[in-house]
Amino acid sequence: MELEPVRDLPEIRAGDDLADLIADRTTLEPGDVVTVASTVVSKAEGRTADLDDYPVSGRAREIADKIGELTAEEKDPRFAQAVLEESTELLIDAPFLLTETRFGHISVNAGIDRSNVPGHDLLLLPKRPGKSAERIRAGLEERGVDDVAVIVTDTCGRPFRHGQRGVALGWAGISASRDWRGEPDRDGRELGVTVQSVVDELSSAANLVAGEGAGGTPAVVVRDWAFGDLEGSDELFRSVEDDLVRQALREWEFDG
Amino acid sequence: MELEPVRDLPEIRAGDDLADLIADRTTLEPGDVVTVASTVVSKAEGRTADLDDYPVSGRAREIADKIGELTAEEKDPRFAQAVLEESTELLIDAPFLLTETRFGHISVNAGIDRSNVPGHDLLLLPKRPGKSAERIRAGLEERGVDDVAVIVTDTCGRPFRHGQRGVALGWAGISASRDWRGEPDRDGRELGVTVQSVVDELSSAANLVAGEGAGGTPAVVVRDWAFGDLEGSDELFRSVEDDLVRQALREWEFDG
Repeated sequence: MELEPVRDLPEIRAGDDLADLIADRTTLEPGDVVTVASTVVSKAEGRTADLDDYPVSGRAREIADKIGELTAEEKDPRFAQAVLEESTELLIDAPFLLTETRFGHISVNAGIDRSNVPGHDLLLLPKRPGKSAERIRAGLEERGVDDVAVIVTDTCGRPFRHGQRGVALGWAGISASRDWRGEPDRDGRELGVTVQSVVDELSSAANLVAGEGAGGTPAVVVRDWAFGDLEGSDELFRSVEDDLVRQALREWEFDG
Repeated sequence: MELEPVRDLPEIRAGDDLADLIADRTTLEPGDVVTVASTVVSKAEGRTADLDDYPVSGRAREIADKIGELTAEEKDPRFAQAVLEESTELLIDAPFLLTETRFGHISVNAGIDRSNVPGHDLLLLPKRPGKSAERIRAGLEERGVDDVAVIVTDTCGRPFRHGQRGVALGWAGISASRDWRGEPDRDGRELGVTVQSVVDELSSAANLVAGEGAGGTPAVVVRDWAFGDLEGSDELFRSVEDDLVRQALREWEFDG
Protein backbone atom coordinates (compact mmCIF):
# COMPACT_ATOMS: atom_id res chain seq x y z
CA MET A 1 0.00 0.00 0.00
CA GLU A 2 1.31 3.42 -0.89
CA LEU A 3 0.14 6.88 0.08
CA GLU A 4 0.94 9.93 -1.92
CA PRO A 5 -0.06 13.50 -1.13
CA VAL A 6 -1.70 15.45 -3.94
CA ARG A 7 0.65 18.42 -4.17
CA ASP A 8 0.16 22.06 -5.12
CA LEU A 9 -3.58 22.33 -4.71
CA PRO A 10 -4.49 26.01 -4.64
CA GLU A 11 -6.41 27.67 -1.82
CA ILE A 12 -9.94 26.35 -2.39
CA ARG A 13 -12.81 28.80 -2.92
CA ALA A 14 -16.58 28.39 -3.11
CA GLY A 15 -17.55 26.84 -6.41
CA ASP A 16 -14.17 25.21 -7.11
CA ASP A 17 -14.34 21.78 -8.72
CA LEU A 18 -12.28 19.51 -6.46
CA ALA A 19 -12.43 16.56 -8.87
CA ASP A 20 -10.89 18.75 -11.55
CA LEU A 21 -8.21 20.16 -9.31
CA ILE A 22 -7.24 16.72 -8.02
CA ALA A 23 -7.35 14.96 -11.40
CA ASP A 24 -5.04 17.65 -12.82
CA ARG A 25 -2.41 16.94 -10.19
CA THR A 26 -2.23 13.16 -9.98
CA THR A 27 -2.79 10.04 -12.06
CA LEU A 28 -5.49 7.80 -10.68
CA GLU A 29 -5.92 4.09 -11.37
CA PRO A 30 -8.92 1.86 -10.75
CA GLY A 31 -8.87 0.76 -7.12
CA ASP A 32 -7.19 3.91 -5.83
CA VAL A 33 -8.71 5.69 -2.87
CA VAL A 34 -8.71 9.50 -2.80
CA THR A 35 -9.09 11.15 0.57
CA VAL A 36 -10.14 14.79 0.71
CA ALA A 37 -10.12 16.86 3.89
CA SER A 38 -13.55 18.16 4.84
CA THR A 39 -12.09 21.68 5.16
CA VAL A 40 -11.59 21.99 1.41
CA VAL A 41 -14.87 20.22 0.65
CA SER A 42 -16.62 22.76 2.86
CA LYS A 43 -14.82 25.65 1.20
CA ALA A 44 -15.71 24.40 -2.27
CA GLU A 45 -19.32 24.04 -1.14
CA GLY A 46 -19.38 27.53 0.36
CA ARG A 47 -19.96 26.29 3.90
CA THR A 48 -18.45 29.41 5.45
CA ALA A 49 -20.45 31.48 7.90
CA ASP A 50 -20.12 34.45 10.19
CA LEU A 51 -20.96 34.69 13.85
CA ASP A 52 -23.50 37.41 13.10
CA ASP A 53 -25.46 34.88 11.03
CA TYR A 54 -26.52 33.27 14.30
CA PRO A 55 -29.05 35.23 16.37
CA VAL A 56 -28.63 33.85 19.86
CA SER A 57 -31.36 31.68 21.39
CA GLY A 58 -31.90 31.33 25.12
CA ARG A 59 -30.39 27.84 25.03
CA ALA A 60 -27.23 29.10 23.31
CA ARG A 61 -26.85 31.87 25.89
CA GLU A 62 -27.29 29.37 28.74
CA ILE A 63 -24.63 27.11 27.26
CA ALA A 64 -22.19 29.95 26.69
CA ASP A 65 -22.70 31.18 30.27
CA LYS A 66 -22.24 27.69 31.71
CA ILE A 67 -19.05 27.05 29.74
CA GLY A 68 -17.79 30.51 30.65
CA GLU A 69 -18.32 29.81 34.36
CA LEU A 70 -16.70 26.39 34.21
CA THR A 71 -13.69 27.24 32.11
CA ALA A 72 -13.06 30.94 32.74
CA GLU A 73 -12.80 31.16 28.97
CA GLU A 74 -15.37 33.34 27.32
CA LYS A 75 -17.61 31.44 24.92
CA ASP A 76 -19.34 33.47 22.23
CA PRO A 77 -23.06 32.62 22.47
CA ARG A 78 -23.30 33.07 18.69
CA PHE A 79 -20.81 30.25 18.31
CA ALA A 80 -22.88 28.07 20.66
CA GLN A 81 -25.88 28.92 18.48
CA ALA A 82 -24.02 27.85 15.34
CA VAL A 83 -23.13 24.54 16.97
CA LEU A 84 -26.76 23.97 18.00
CA GLU A 85 -27.97 24.65 14.47
CA GLU A 86 -25.55 22.13 13.02
CA SER A 87 -26.54 19.45 15.52
CA THR A 88 -29.34 17.00 16.18
CA GLU A 89 -28.29 16.08 19.71
CA LEU A 90 -26.21 17.64 22.43
CA LEU A 91 -24.18 14.92 24.17
CA ILE A 92 -22.17 17.22 26.43
CA ASP A 93 -23.02 20.91 26.92
CA ALA A 94 -20.17 21.82 29.26
CA PRO A 95 -17.24 22.29 29.75
CA PHE A 96 -17.28 21.92 25.98
CA LEU A 97 -19.90 21.12 23.38
CA LEU A 98 -20.00 17.56 22.09
CA THR A 99 -22.80 17.04 19.62
CA GLU A 100 -24.15 14.76 16.93
CA THR A 101 -24.17 16.48 13.57
CA ARG A 102 -27.05 16.14 11.16
CA PHE A 103 -25.26 13.35 9.31
CA GLY A 104 -24.51 11.29 12.44
CA HIS A 105 -20.92 12.24 13.24
CA ILE A 106 -20.15 13.02 16.87
CA SER A 107 -17.61 15.72 17.46
CA VAL A 108 -16.69 18.73 19.55
CA ASN A 109 -18.40 21.96 18.39
CA ALA A 110 -20.16 20.02 15.59
CA GLY A 111 -16.83 20.10 13.81
CA ILE A 112 -17.04 23.84 13.18
CA ASP A 113 -13.61 25.23 12.38
CA ARG A 114 -12.54 28.71 13.48
CA SER A 115 -8.88 28.59 12.45
CA ASN A 116 -8.87 28.01 8.75
CA VAL A 117 -11.39 30.39 7.21
CA PRO A 118 -10.08 33.34 5.23
CA GLY A 119 -12.63 36.14 5.10
CA HIS A 120 -15.16 34.48 7.41
CA ASP A 121 -15.52 33.54 11.05
CA LEU A 122 -16.56 29.92 10.69
CA LEU A 123 -16.19 26.92 8.44
CA LEU A 124 -19.01 24.41 8.89
CA LEU A 125 -18.64 20.73 8.02
CA PRO A 126 -20.08 19.67 4.67
CA LYS A 127 -23.84 19.28 4.93
CA ARG A 128 -23.88 15.71 3.59
CA PRO A 129 -20.31 14.44 3.35
CA GLY A 130 -21.48 11.20 1.73
CA LYS A 131 -23.07 13.23 -1.05
CA SER A 132 -19.92 15.34 -1.31
CA ALA A 133 -17.85 12.17 -1.77
CA GLU A 134 -20.29 10.96 -4.44
CA ARG A 135 -20.07 14.27 -6.30
CA ILE A 136 -16.27 14.26 -6.29
CA ARG A 137 -16.29 10.64 -7.45
CA ALA A 138 -18.75 11.44 -10.23
CA GLY A 139 -16.57 14.40 -11.22
CA LEU A 140 -13.57 12.11 -11.48
CA GLU A 141 -15.59 9.68 -13.60
CA GLU A 142 -16.52 12.50 -15.95
CA ARG A 143 -12.82 13.05 -16.42
CA GLY A 144 -12.32 9.38 -17.31
CA VAL A 145 -11.20 8.20 -13.88
CA ASP A 146 -13.17 5.03 -13.17
CA ASP A 147 -13.50 2.84 -10.12
CA VAL A 148 -11.81 4.97 -7.53
CA ALA A 149 -13.17 5.46 -4.04
CA VAL A 150 -13.47 8.89 -2.43
CA ILE A 151 -13.46 9.58 1.30
CA VAL A 152 -14.20 12.96 2.88
CA THR A 153 -12.11 13.06 6.05
CA ASP A 154 -11.80 15.04 9.23
CA THR A 155 -9.57 14.86 12.28
CA CYS A 156 -11.09 14.64 15.70
CA GLY A 157 -10.44 13.59 19.26
CA ARG A 158 -11.97 10.64 21.08
CA PRO A 159 -12.64 9.31 24.56
CA PHE A 160 -10.03 7.18 26.34
CA ARG A 161 -7.09 8.29 24.19
CA HIS A 162 -5.36 11.61 23.78
CA GLY A 163 -4.85 13.29 20.48
CA GLN A 164 -6.73 13.51 17.25
CA ARG A 165 -6.75 11.04 14.39
CA GLY A 166 -8.18 11.04 10.91
CA VAL A 167 -11.76 9.78 10.55
CA ALA A 168 -14.16 9.43 7.66
CA LEU A 169 -17.22 11.68 7.39
CA GLY A 170 -18.49 10.47 4.03
CA TRP A 171 -17.43 7.99 1.38
CA ALA A 172 -18.33 6.73 -2.08
CA GLY A 173 -17.19 3.74 -4.10
CA ILE A 174 -16.20 1.81 -0.99
CA SER A 175 -17.95 0.21 1.98
CA ALA A 176 -17.44 1.82 5.36
CA SER A 177 -16.25 -1.41 6.87
CA ARG A 178 -15.05 -4.87 6.03
CA ASP A 179 -16.76 -7.75 7.76
CA TRP A 180 -14.43 -10.57 8.73
CA ARG A 181 -17.04 -12.50 10.72
CA GLY A 182 -17.20 -16.09 9.66
CA GLU A 183 -13.67 -16.03 8.23
CA PRO A 184 -11.34 -18.65 9.69
CA ASP A 185 -8.44 -17.55 11.90
CA ARG A 186 -4.94 -19.00 11.51
CA ASP A 187 -6.04 -22.16 13.33
CA GLY A 188 -9.15 -22.61 11.26
CA ARG A 189 -11.49 -21.38 13.97
CA GLU A 190 -14.12 -18.82 13.17
CA LEU A 191 -13.14 -15.24 13.99
CA GLY A 192 -15.19 -13.47 16.61
CA VAL A 193 -16.74 -10.04 16.19
CA THR A 194 -14.42 -8.41 13.73
CA VAL A 195 -15.78 -5.59 11.68
CA GLN A 196 -12.93 -3.44 10.47
CA SER A 197 -13.67 0.23 9.92
CA VAL A 198 -11.68 0.59 6.71
CA VAL A 199 -12.80 4.13 5.85
CA ASP A 200 -11.60 5.35 9.23
CA GLU A 201 -8.32 3.47 8.93
CA LEU A 202 -7.78 4.91 5.47
CA SER A 203 -8.53 8.39 6.81
CA SER A 204 -6.03 7.94 9.63
CA ALA A 205 -3.39 6.67 7.22
CA ALA A 206 -4.00 9.62 4.90
CA ASN A 207 -3.71 12.06 7.79
CA LEU A 208 -0.13 10.89 8.38
CA VAL A 209 0.72 12.04 4.89
CA ALA A 210 -1.51 15.12 4.71
CA GLY A 211 -0.02 16.98 7.64
CA GLU A 212 -1.51 20.09 9.20
CA GLY A 213 -0.81 23.74 8.86
CA ALA A 214 1.02 25.64 6.20
CA GLY A 215 2.88 22.64 4.74
CA GLY A 216 -0.16 20.38 4.69
CA THR A 217 -2.12 19.08 1.74
CA PRO A 218 -5.83 18.31 1.89
CA ALA A 219 -5.86 15.39 -0.57
CA VAL A 220 -4.06 12.06 -0.52
CA VAL A 221 -4.13 9.08 -2.86
CA VAL A 222 -3.94 5.54 -1.48
CA ARG A 223 -2.63 3.09 -4.06
CA ASP A 224 -2.11 -0.65 -4.20
CA TRP A 225 -4.57 -1.38 -1.48
CA ALA A 226 -7.31 -3.87 -2.20
CA PHE A 227 -10.59 -3.70 -0.37
CA GLY A 228 -11.04 -7.28 -1.51
CA ASP A 229 -14.30 -9.06 -2.06
CA LEU A 230 -15.33 -9.50 1.55
CA GLU A 231 -18.74 -8.31 2.57
CA GLY A 232 -18.80 -4.81 3.93
CA SER A 233 -21.29 -2.55 5.61
CA ASP A 234 -22.11 1.09 5.15
CA GLU A 235 -22.90 1.76 8.77
CA LEU A 236 -20.31 3.94 10.44
CA PHE A 237 -22.10 6.10 12.98
CA ARG A 238 -23.57 4.34 16.00
CA SER A 239 -27.12 5.03 17.04
CA VAL A 240 -27.89 5.71 20.70
CA GLU A 241 -29.38 2.22 21.05
CA ASP A 242 -26.10 0.79 19.93
CA ASP A 243 -23.80 2.92 22.02
CA LEU A 244 -23.61 2.61 25.80
CA VAL A 245 -21.38 5.67 26.04
CA ARG A 246 -24.04 7.81 24.39
CA GLN A 247 -26.61 6.33 26.78
CA ALA A 248 -24.38 7.17 29.74
CA LEU A 249 -23.81 10.72 28.51
CA ARG A 250 -27.57 11.28 28.20
CA GLU A 251 -27.96 10.71 31.91
CA TRP A 252 -24.90 12.66 32.99
CA GLU A 253 -24.08 16.26 33.70
CA PHE A 254 -20.66 17.78 34.31
CA ASP A 255 -20.51 19.50 37.67
CA GLY A 256 -16.98 20.85 37.69
CA MET B 1 4.65 6.62 2.62
CA GLU B 2 4.64 2.93 1.90
CA LEU B 3 3.36 -0.02 3.91
CA GLU B 4 4.62 -3.52 3.40
CA PRO B 5 3.48 -6.62 5.23
CA VAL B 6 6.22 -8.83 6.69
CA ARG B 7 5.42 -12.13 5.01
CA ASP B 8 5.84 -15.75 6.03
CA LEU B 9 6.20 -15.29 9.75
CA PRO B 10 5.73 -18.68 11.40
CA GLU B 11 3.15 -19.38 14.11
CA ILE B 12 4.70 -17.64 17.11
CA ARG B 13 5.41 -19.63 20.28
CA ALA B 14 6.52 -18.67 23.80
CA GLY B 15 10.17 -17.67 23.80
CA ASP B 16 10.35 -16.80 20.09
CA ASP B 17 12.50 -13.79 19.26
CA LEU B 18 10.27 -11.49 17.24
CA ALA B 19 13.09 -9.11 16.35
CA ASP B 20 14.99 -12.01 14.84
CA LEU B 21 12.01 -13.38 12.95
CA ILE B 22 11.13 -9.95 11.53
CA ALA B 23 14.71 -8.93 10.65
CA ASP B 24 15.11 -12.20 8.73
CA ARG B 25 12.14 -11.40 6.52
CA THR B 26 12.53 -7.74 5.64
CA THR B 27 15.18 -5.08 5.16
CA LEU B 28 14.81 -2.18 7.55
CA GLU B 29 16.18 1.32 7.07
CA PRO B 30 16.60 4.12 9.61
CA GLY B 31 13.27 5.91 10.02
CA ASP B 32 11.15 2.85 9.27
CA VAL B 33 8.33 1.98 11.63
CA VAL B 34 7.63 -1.67 12.41
CA THR B 35 4.19 -2.52 13.75
CA VAL B 36 3.69 -5.83 15.52
CA ALA B 37 0.28 -7.17 16.50
CA SER B 38 -0.10 -7.67 20.24
CA THR B 39 -1.30 -11.24 19.62
CA VAL B 40 2.14 -12.39 18.51
CA VAL B 41 3.88 -10.29 21.16
CA SER B 42 1.70 -12.01 23.77
CA LYS B 43 2.42 -15.43 22.32
CA ALA B 44 6.18 -14.78 22.29
CA GLU B 45 5.94 -13.60 25.89
CA GLY B 46 3.95 -16.65 26.95
CA ARG B 47 0.86 -14.63 27.88
CA THR B 48 -1.48 -17.58 27.36
CA ALA B 49 -3.74 -18.75 30.16
CA ASP B 50 -6.53 -21.20 30.88
CA LEU B 51 -9.90 -20.54 32.40
CA ASP B 52 -9.07 -22.90 35.25
CA ASP B 53 -6.23 -20.56 36.24
CA TYR B 54 -8.87 -18.16 37.53
CA PRO B 55 -10.63 -19.22 40.75
CA VAL B 56 -13.85 -17.24 40.71
CA SER B 57 -14.35 -14.36 43.16
CA GLY B 58 -17.76 -13.18 44.31
CA ARG B 59 -17.44 -10.08 42.12
CA ALA B 60 -16.69 -12.17 39.02
CA ARG B 61 -19.70 -14.38 39.69
CA GLU B 62 -21.94 -11.31 40.13
CA ILE B 63 -20.72 -9.87 36.84
CA ALA B 64 -21.18 -13.14 34.96
CA ASP B 65 -24.70 -13.50 36.37
CA LYS B 66 -25.62 -9.92 35.47
CA ILE B 67 -24.31 -10.24 31.92
CA GLY B 68 -26.04 -13.60 31.58
CA GLU B 69 -29.38 -12.08 32.63
CA LEU B 70 -29.03 -9.08 30.34
CA THR B 71 -27.80 -10.82 27.23
CA ALA B 72 -29.18 -14.36 27.48
CA GLU B 73 -25.63 -15.39 26.60
CA GLU B 74 -23.86 -17.42 29.24
CA LYS B 75 -20.74 -15.70 30.54
CA ASP B 76 -18.10 -17.93 32.12
CA PRO B 77 -17.38 -16.44 35.57
CA ARG B 78 -13.77 -17.61 35.21
CA PHE B 79 -13.48 -15.37 32.15
CA ALA B 80 -14.91 -12.44 34.12
CA GLN B 81 -12.31 -13.20 36.79
CA ALA B 82 -9.51 -13.14 34.21
CA VAL B 83 -10.73 -9.75 32.97
CA LEU B 84 -10.83 -8.39 36.53
CA GLU B 85 -7.29 -9.58 37.21
CA GLU B 86 -5.99 -7.83 34.09
CA SER B 87 -7.76 -4.57 34.95
CA THR B 88 -7.36 -1.62 37.28
CA GLU B 89 -10.83 -0.17 36.71
CA LEU B 90 -14.15 -1.47 35.54
CA LEU B 91 -15.82 1.18 33.34
CA ILE B 92 -18.82 -0.91 32.28
CA ASP B 93 -19.72 -4.23 33.94
CA ALA B 94 -22.75 -5.10 31.83
CA PRO B 95 -23.93 -5.95 29.20
CA PHE B 96 -20.24 -6.35 28.48
CA LEU B 97 -17.02 -5.69 30.34
CA LEU B 98 -15.18 -2.51 29.48
CA THR B 99 -12.10 -2.03 31.62
CA GLU B 100 -8.85 -0.17 31.94
CA THR B 101 -5.90 -2.51 31.70
CA ARG B 102 -2.90 -2.18 33.99
CA PHE B 103 -1.05 -0.17 31.37
CA GLY B 104 -3.87 2.33 30.77
CA HIS B 105 -5.59 0.98 27.65
CA ILE B 106 -9.38 0.85 27.73
CA SER B 107 -10.96 -2.07 25.95
CA VAL B 108 -13.66 -4.69 26.06
CA ASN B 109 -12.70 -7.74 28.16
CA ALA B 110 -9.31 -6.15 28.94
CA GLY B 111 -8.33 -7.16 25.43
CA ILE B 112 -8.30 -10.86 26.29
CA ASP B 113 -8.52 -12.94 23.13
CA ARG B 114 -10.38 -16.25 23.02
CA SER B 115 -10.17 -16.95 19.29
CA ASN B 116 -6.49 -17.14 18.49
CA VAL B 117 -4.87 -19.34 21.11
CA PRO B 118 -3.74 -22.81 20.09
CA GLY B 119 -3.54 -25.14 23.09
CA HIS B 120 -4.94 -22.63 25.59
CA ASP B 121 -8.20 -20.90 26.42
CA LEU B 122 -7.02 -17.31 26.60
CA LEU B 123 -4.44 -14.93 25.22
CA LEU B 124 -3.84 -11.95 27.50
CA LEU B 125 -2.48 -8.65 26.23
CA PRO B 126 1.24 -8.07 26.79
CA LYS B 127 1.86 -7.04 30.40
CA ARG B 128 3.76 -3.83 29.45
CA PRO B 129 3.42 -3.27 25.70
CA GLY B 130 5.78 -0.27 25.88
CA LYS B 131 8.48 -2.54 27.31
CA SER B 132 7.67 -5.14 24.66
CA ALA B 133 8.20 -2.54 21.94
CA GLU B 134 11.49 -1.50 23.55
CA ARG B 135 12.67 -5.11 23.69
CA ILE B 136 11.85 -5.71 20.03
CA ARG B 137 13.57 -2.46 19.09
CA ALA B 138 16.65 -3.42 21.13
CA GLY B 139 16.64 -6.84 19.46
CA LEU B 140 16.60 -5.17 16.05
CA GLU B 141 19.48 -2.92 17.12
CA GLU B 142 21.47 -5.96 18.16
CA ARG B 143 21.04 -7.19 14.63
CA GLY B 144 22.40 -3.93 13.25
CA VAL B 145 19.05 -2.27 12.54
CA ASP B 146 19.32 1.26 13.92
CA ASP B 147 16.82 4.06 14.34
CA VAL B 148 13.62 2.24 13.62
CA ALA B 149 10.46 2.71 15.66
CA VAL B 150 8.41 -0.22 16.95
CA ILE B 151 4.71 -0.12 17.76
CA VAL B 152 2.78 -2.94 19.44
CA THR B 153 -0.73 -2.74 18.03
CA ASP B 154 -4.20 -4.05 18.71
CA THR B 155 -7.57 -3.62 17.09
CA CYS B 156 -10.49 -2.46 19.16
CA GLY B 157 -13.88 -0.82 18.96
CA ARG B 158 -14.79 2.64 20.14
CA PRO B 159 -17.77 4.76 21.17
CA PHE B 160 -19.71 6.75 18.55
CA ARG B 161 -18.47 4.74 15.55
CA HIS B 162 -19.01 1.17 14.48
CA GLY B 163 -16.23 -1.22 13.73
CA GLN B 164 -12.75 -1.75 14.99
CA ARG B 165 -9.59 0.03 14.00
CA GLY B 166 -5.92 -0.46 14.73
CA VAL B 167 -4.58 1.29 17.84
CA ALA B 168 -1.22 1.44 19.56
CA LEU B 169 -0.68 -0.28 22.90
CA GLY B 170 3.04 0.38 23.26
CA TRP B 171 5.78 2.09 21.25
CA ALA B 172 9.50 2.75 21.24
CA GLY B 173 11.70 5.01 19.17
CA ILE B 174 8.81 7.36 18.39
CA SER B 175 6.61 9.80 20.29
CA ALA B 176 2.97 8.86 20.73
CA SER B 177 1.79 12.09 19.20
CA ARG B 178 2.91 15.06 17.19
CA ASP B 179 2.10 18.46 18.57
CA TRP B 180 1.12 21.02 15.95
CA ARG B 181 0.09 23.71 18.41
CA GLY B 182 1.76 26.99 17.63
CA GLU B 183 2.36 26.06 13.98
CA PRO B 184 0.88 28.48 11.49
CA ASP B 185 -2.04 27.40 9.30
CA ARG B 186 -2.17 28.13 5.58
CA ASP B 187 -3.19 31.71 6.31
CA GLY B 188 -0.42 32.26 8.83
CA ARG B 189 -2.75 32.04 11.83
CA GLU B 190 -1.82 29.84 14.73
CA LEU B 191 -3.41 26.38 14.66
CA GLY B 192 -5.78 25.55 17.49
CA VAL B 193 -5.62 22.41 19.59
CA THR B 194 -4.04 19.94 17.26
CA VAL B 195 -2.24 17.02 18.77
CA GLN B 196 -2.05 14.22 16.26
CA SER B 197 -1.97 10.70 17.61
CA VAL B 198 0.61 9.36 15.19
CA VAL B 199 1.09 5.97 16.83
CA ASP B 200 -2.62 5.28 16.54
CA GLU B 201 -2.73 6.47 12.95
CA LEU B 202 0.25 4.29 12.09
CA SER B 203 -1.47 1.33 13.78
CA SER B 204 -4.66 1.93 11.79
CA ALA B 205 -2.70 2.22 8.56
CA ALA B 206 -0.82 -0.99 9.31
CA ASN B 207 -4.07 -2.80 10.06
CA LEU B 208 -5.23 -2.15 6.50
CA VAL B 209 -2.26 -4.13 5.27
CA ALA B 210 -2.10 -6.75 8.01
CA GLY B 211 -5.55 -8.18 7.49
CA GLU B 212 -7.25 -10.59 9.85
CA GLY B 213 -7.68 -14.32 9.88
CA ALA B 214 -5.82 -17.02 8.02
CA GLY B 215 -4.35 -14.73 5.36
CA GLY B 216 -3.26 -12.06 7.79
CA THR B 217 0.22 -11.11 8.86
CA PRO B 218 1.03 -9.70 12.30
CA ALA B 219 3.88 -7.38 11.29
CA VAL B 220 3.98 -4.46 8.88
CA VAL B 221 6.76 -2.05 7.93
CA VAL B 222 5.98 1.62 7.27
CA ARG B 223 8.59 3.25 5.04
CA ASP B 224 9.23 6.75 3.75
CA TRP B 225 7.28 8.42 6.47
CA ALA B 226 8.98 11.12 8.49
CA PHE B 227 7.89 11.90 12.00
CA GLY B 228 9.72 15.17 11.50
CA ASP B 229 11.24 17.32 14.19
CA LEU B 230 8.05 18.67 15.71
CA GLU B 231 7.62 18.29 19.43
CA GLY B 232 5.74 15.20 20.44
CA SER B 233 4.29 13.77 23.60
CA ASP B 234 4.32 10.29 25.04
CA GLU B 235 0.89 10.52 26.60
CA LEU B 236 -1.64 8.32 24.87
CA PHE B 237 -4.05 7.05 27.50
CA ARG B 238 -6.34 9.62 29.10
CA SER B 239 -6.67 9.76 32.86
CA VAL B 240 -10.14 9.98 34.40
CA GLU B 241 -9.57 13.67 35.19
CA ASP B 242 -8.97 14.27 31.53
CA ASP B 243 -11.84 12.24 30.13
CA LEU B 244 -15.46 13.28 30.57
CA VAL B 245 -16.68 10.00 29.10
CA ARG B 246 -14.87 8.07 31.80
CA GLN B 247 -16.37 10.40 34.40
CA ALA B 248 -19.84 9.82 32.97
CA LEU B 249 -19.36 6.05 32.91
CA ARG B 250 -18.33 6.06 36.59
CA GLU B 251 -21.73 7.42 37.53
CA TRP B 252 -23.77 5.29 35.18
CA GLU B 253 -25.22 1.81 35.26
CA PHE B 254 -26.79 -0.10 32.39
CA ASP B 255 -30.33 -1.12 33.22
CA GLY B 256 -31.35 -3.01 30.10
